[in-house]
Amino acid sequence: MRVLGIDPGLRNMGWGVIDADGSRLSHVANGICHSVGADLAARLLSLHEQLTDVVARFQPDHAAIEQTFVNKDGAGTLKLGQARGIALLVPAQAGLVIGEYAPNKVKKTVVGVGHAEKHQVEHMVKLQLPGVSINGADAADALAIAICHAHYAKAGAGYDAALKRASA
Amino acid sequence: MRVLGIDPGLRNMGWGVIDADGSRLSHVANGICHSVGADLAARLLSLHEQLTDVVARFQPDHAAIEQTFVNKDGAGTLKLGQARGIALLVPAQAGLVIGEYAPNKVKKTVVGVGHAEKHQVEHMVKLQLPGVSINGADAADALAIAICHAHYAKAGAGYDAALKRASA
Repeated sequence: MRVLGIDPGLRNMGWGVIDADGSRLSHVANGICHSVGADLAARLLSLHEQLTDVVARFQPDHAAIEQTFVNKDGAGTLKLGQARGIALLVPAQAGLVIGEYAPNKVKKTVVGVGHAEKHQVEHMVKLQLPGVSINGADAADALAIAICHAHYAKAGAGYDAALKRASA
Repeated sequence: MRVLGIDPGLRNMGWGVIDADGSRLSHVANGICHSVGADLAARLLSLHEQLTDVVARFQPDHAAIEQTFVNKDGAGTLKLGQARGIALLVPAQAGLVIGEYAPNKVKKTVVGVGHAEKHQVEHMVKLQLPGVSINGADAADALAIAICHAHYAKAGAGYDAALKRASA
């Protein structure tokens, strides 16, 4: 099973691809889509094109996306929502199984505690994907989300979701 | 100039197409995309497919989208943001000029006052587009947004935006 993890953001969208064979994980690729453009629509288009290219290049079977933290900053939530719409659309267009995970669940799965610091997450991602070279914090988060999904999909949760989507 | 107005929403996305020839406006079509699907990604995919179909059928030159009102309901803002990401992506993919207008500006342009009631907006849309049959409140809002854009694009604002996009 090949999993694409996505850390959504309007300016920088992290992505990470891993292969999971039972409990064996291996790193495939990771990076960050930087949105370019004079206005919001152009930036969303840029993210859509780059993420579509990642899916075409690495052909994942599953995608996993972090659930967005809703805070009191309405304008920030709206921006993130717009980017997250693209992050969900691209794997849906490719027919992938999609899992969504709360940030605390990702940290708990990868580090063992729900309130881990960023550097702890990156450290554990490196331990679980030997030899990985990580292209920035957003890419590390995306790899952590992919690892989280590999764990739950192996346990059957991902396949339940797949069946639900197929019968919808 | 043919304008597609879009009233973004995750459950119901209103759309309306008008032709503007100087100050002469005429109705082309209007309707509502209802999102279907078992999960958020499937619903966003459904909206993307339906709105892409509207653009392909009616071949607008410009698109106009209401600026989203950010309120204290973070979860609602996030949902709307995700739908709005799709509403901006589709015309950007088609290379359309895109205008964004605050709700009060739309009302002020179409009705004459910024705090008009919904039924006043619908009434003025009907007056300005003789013979129109409106497929629901979200479609009426979308037509009002299209009328607002036709007004400002005629005055040059839309073309300024077009030049900015082309030189970005």
